[in-house]
Amino acid sequence: MAIYQATASAPVNIACIKYWGKRDTKLILPTNSSLSVTLDQDHLRSTTTSRADPSFEKDRLWLNSAEEEIKEGGRLSTCIREMKRMRKEVENKDASLPKLSTYAVHICSRNNFPTAAGLASSASGFAALVASLAALYQLPASPSELSLIARQGSGSACRSLFGGFVAWEMGSKPDGSDSLAVEVAPREHWPDIHALICVVSDDKKGTSSTSGMQRTVETSTLLQHRIKYVVPERMEAISAAIRARDFDSFARITMQDSNQFHAVALDTDPPIFYMNDVSRAIIALIVEYNRVAVAAGGKLKAAYTYDAGPNAVIYAPKENLKEIVELIVKYFPQAEPFKDPFALFGGAGVQGRVVDGFNAAVAKPFSVGAVKGLIHTRVGDGPRVLGAEEALLGSDGLPKA
Amino acid sequence: MAIYQATASAPVNIACIKYWGKRDTKLILPTNSSLSVTLDQDHLRSTTTSRADPSFEKDRLWLNSAEEEIKEGGRLSTCIREMKRMRKEVENKDASLPKLSTYAVHICSRNNFPTAAGLASSASGFAALVASLAALYQLPASPSELSLIARQGSGSACRSLFGGFVAWEMGSKPDGSDSLAVEVAPREHWPDIHALICVVSDDKKGTSSTSGMQRTVETSTLLQHRIKYVVPERMEAISAAIRARDFDSFARITMQDSNQFHAVALDTDPPIFYMNDVSRAIIALIVEYNRVAVAAGGKLKAAYTYDAGPNAVIYAPKENLKEIVELIVKYFPQAEPFKDPFALFGGAGVQGRVVDGFNAAVAKPFSVGAVKGLIHTRVGDGPRVLGAEEALLGSDGLPKA
Repeated sequence: MAIYQATASAPVNIACIKYWGKRDTKLILPTNSSLSVTLDQDHLRSTTTSRADPSFEKDRLWLNSAEEEIKEGGRLSTCIREMKRMRKEVENKDASLPKLSTYAVHICSRNNFPTAAGLASSASGFAALVASLAALYQLPASPSELSLIARQGSGSACRSLFGGFVAWEMGSKPDGSDSLAVEVAPREHWPDIHALICVVSDDKKGTSSTSGMQRTVETSTLLQHRIKYVVPERMEAISAAIRARDFDSFARITMQDSNQFHAVALDTDPPIFYMNDVSRAIIALIVEYNRVAVAAGGKLKAAYTYDAGPNAVIYAPKENLKEIVELIVKYFPQAEPFKDPFALFGGAGVQGRVVDGFNAAVAKPFSVGAVKGLIHTRVGDGPRVLGAEEALLGSDGLPKA
Repeated sequence: MAIYQATASAPVNIACIKYWGKRDTKLILPTNSSLSVTLDQDHLRSTTTSRADPSFEKDRLWLNSAEEEIKEGGRLSTCIREMKRMRKEVENKDASLPKLSTYAVHICSRNNFPTAAGLASSASGFAALVASLAALYQLPASPSELSLIARQGSGSACRSLFGGFVAWEMGSKPDGSDSLAVEVAPREHWPDIHALICVVSDDKKGTSSTSGMQRTVETSTLLQHRIKYVVPERMEAISAAIRARDFDSFARITMQDSNQFHAVALDTDPPIFYMNDVSRAIIALIVEYNRVAVAAGGKLKAAYTYDAGPNAVIYAPKENLKEIVELIVKYFPQAEPFKDPFALFGGAGVQGRVVDGFNAAVAKPFSVGAVKGLIHTRVGDGPRVLGAEEALLGSDGLPKA
């Protein structure tokens, strides 16, 4: 009896031009285009194994070992249905293929980072789901075609179908067939872009992005101006900056757009806050770090960006990461030693310090735990198909212990 | 020898439609109209005594007992010069009048609230300066005419020339002669509007409003849309709400405009933050307090607004103030007993509590000191000319000890 199973992993992506607002909530069609950097799966990834078998009674899915309900008409159900539809088209063209589209599937997915970290796992999760089913079904689909399906699971998931620098073009068709991800540049074009994720402690449950963005669409009197005039210009400008490897422009636009996303969230009724005092302090540190560089005749050395939560992601050329880690650690002492995947520091570990000329008074030092953890990563590749030894489902078609 | 001296007091005002941005920084001409509530001078006021004497060698000014330099070409100098010019016009028409416009002045000003409270004292301060000089010079000027002078001291000071509900009309003339304050409604029209000022502790020196607003004008891509489209509509709507004593609309617009002001501050490069986690928590409390009221079929019961700092001002009909004080005290325990100028509470003082149906989890209780103090006040009258017994200058023309 043949076993039809495939395993894939997919990366996290963090947007520089933010997605905030849907014009179609069912198809997940956005009110504006967006652009992100794909982060390295060596550090952060979702891994998914999908298996089709005629003996399975129904589609089932396990996420981090717990079974999730696949609600009829829900996002998971939509993605699985669409992938089966694509498989069916392949089968229709070649009668010799097994009829996998008629079998139920078992899907097992894991994130290698804790959900508690507050990192959006839906993007990597849905991308890995789609990538594993595409491998299982041996679909001839391009990443952009697969992104159309992932988008219907979670909007920003479509951008995790590519590595490097990725645009989600909003499209204009009512059926969403042109609302997809395209590669702006592969990781190899600009591998020097590194990222430091500052996991910020928050004692307040934030507004979910799904409900928050629609409240902004309904109540903000500034959002339409952003959508119509600001974002199109920024998409052009940041794409050009990426092509030219112009970090100064890339950083400036990234910070401006993070701020504007949070501005329209605040312009919502009732207002939505995702950043807290720790987030604000990290912004103040990066602003001052850049000020010192520019005052010395240089250019911007780092860019912060914040999604729908208090965590900071700091993008910077690799050469600046050592200074940035030292800066963050000076104001946010860490309980755990810094995991140093790029060996920036010797055995002594990180000593908090600021660069010469830095005005230390721009922020006050926080106590241990305000920033719960630091993750150093970099621009990464797109989904990977993994070998059978990485499978998350056992021979019985259920999650491995 | 005649003594030419006058004393006046002027109120603080807190805007509902925010002033943020100048189109002329020298004349202090704003990029949009604004609207405020004048607060009661019985609780918060600036008092100023002005004296003209041929023996004085130069114009001098003392603020809270410390002498301030009157810089040539500065804002103080401009206001004094303009008031002398108006006096000169009066003297030109009546040769029998003493030539006060040719004498130097001594000016002594005091605020009855600590500068540390973080309440903008420049509005009441410049209004009191102009009011005391107008009394000294016995000018026939209307409050709107005087507001033209106060505006050149500090933009929002022009609104403190009236009691009640006051609009600052932005005007369109290059010389600023139509950028002045007008009364939307006197306090007697709607005396039921009370205010609770929550003085919030902040360990960070904020961006000054003068420099902050110009950075927004220069860098925000949302501000122009606010100026052109949003504010004119809101000015109309909130004026109508005031005329109709419609607290629900008044509150909604007030909160929306506070949020939008902070949104454009955040859309500035680098971003400007005035609210902190305490400010955010107070917003969450008022949002929840209103939610409970609306869920019960009622209307909004309170409105928060924040100026260029973390302090909250909560506007509400008088009948709601007891619940609001109890709510704030529950989450922000006070070191000092609540000064209860309207005798809401008996001898036992305030007990923190929330209304029935309130979701206590919308904020976490803070420790003592997060909100340093509470000031209960209400809509108030315009500048008052005071008797000689209130004078701040002694017979020697210097500040009384």
